[in-house]
Amino acid sequence: MSDLSDELTKAIRTIPDYPKAGVQFRDITTLLGDAGAFRRTVDALVQPYAGRSIGKIAGIEARGFILGGAVAHQLSAGFVPIRKKGKLPHETVRVAYSLEYGIDEMEIHRDAVAEGEEIILVDDLIATGGTAEAAVKLLRQMGAKIVSACFVIDLPDLGGRARLEALNVPVNTLLAFEGD
Amino acid sequence: MSDLSDELTKAIRTIPDYPKAGVQFRDITTLLGDAGAFRRTVDALVQPYAGRSIGKIAGIEARGFILGGAVAHQLSAGFVPIRKKGKLPHETVRVAYSLEYGIDEMEIHRDAVAEGEEIILVDDLIATGGTAEAAVKLLRQMGAKIVSACFVIDLPDLGGRARLEALNVPVNTLLAFEGD
Repeated sequence: MSDLSDELTKAIRTIPDYPKAGVQFRDITTLLGDAGAFRRTVDALVQPYAGRSIGKIAGIEARGFILGGAVAHQLSAGFVPIRKKGKLPHETVRVAYSLEYGIDEMEIHRDAVAEGEEIILVDDLIATGGTAEAAVKLLRQMGAKIVSACFVIDLPDLGGRARLEALNVPVNTLLAFEGD
Repeated sequence: MSDLSDELTKAIRTIPDYPKAGVQFRDITTLLGDAGAFRRTVDALVQPYAGRSIGKIAGIEARGFILGGAVAHQLSAGFVPIRKKGKLPHETVRVAYSLEYGIDEMEIHRDAVAEGEEIILVDDLIATGGTAEAAVKLLRQMGAKIVSACFVIDLPDLGGRARLEALNVPVNTLLAFEGD
């Protein structure tokens, strides 16, 4: 584990049995509130793309907005919000995806991405990858080229990284919690 | 109106009669998606505080997260999310505020702000100022010193700026739509 991974891992608060018994919730708000850790997190997310022309950063509501906005600004890219249904005011494209119990839907504005535009997907954490996979499908349906998907936290035992890589989406993460 | 205000105003999409008849909804997603406009928006929000030591940026869910994350990174400050109730995993402080119909509540982690810490509040738009006023009260209740509240869009006819200034909160906005 690198020094940075180690620092960021320590900046994350673990909340046992949240939102339900047996789950260790990885709370990123303590990292966000630590100015140095937040700065180095964004810089590390951006680093692989420095000097490269990226069209837009797509951030997944809501924590992906915090990181994605900073990444977009740092890369001089635009930002596209992927939101829960019913939140965007203009014409949208919608995709359904499975949650642990039942299904949910996410939306993006129909005119938010240009054909062939290079996009990086940003969220705080990848677990099973269900949400990220749905976002990738939505963006590709609109003609976007997914350069990569970036997350601060990987929970590798839940298989999300492998699921995205099977879709030919390169995945960058900064640290991992094993055994979650 | 400055050249920047003019450019940013043109980058905002107006959606008539949304979410209800008679309302002109100012849709900031077109500005966020325009890499140059987004970059200059964040730079202009940050500019008054360049070189100043700011403890944290407080962003209001959800659009305030996109701008607030970028502002925090640019100022090397921490970021604190102010969320709708039930979204934060640790112990919170909650405040109720009035909406057009009924009331809502927002929360912040109890340990998110240190006594005397200097905070800038960030959101996309100030209208009546009810949400921002609630956020200011919540932050002050925790001992924060509110340096200012920053918004891209001011709707001055709705009185939000005056409402915050009456609380001794300096307000910075980048552009205004009159007559809303």
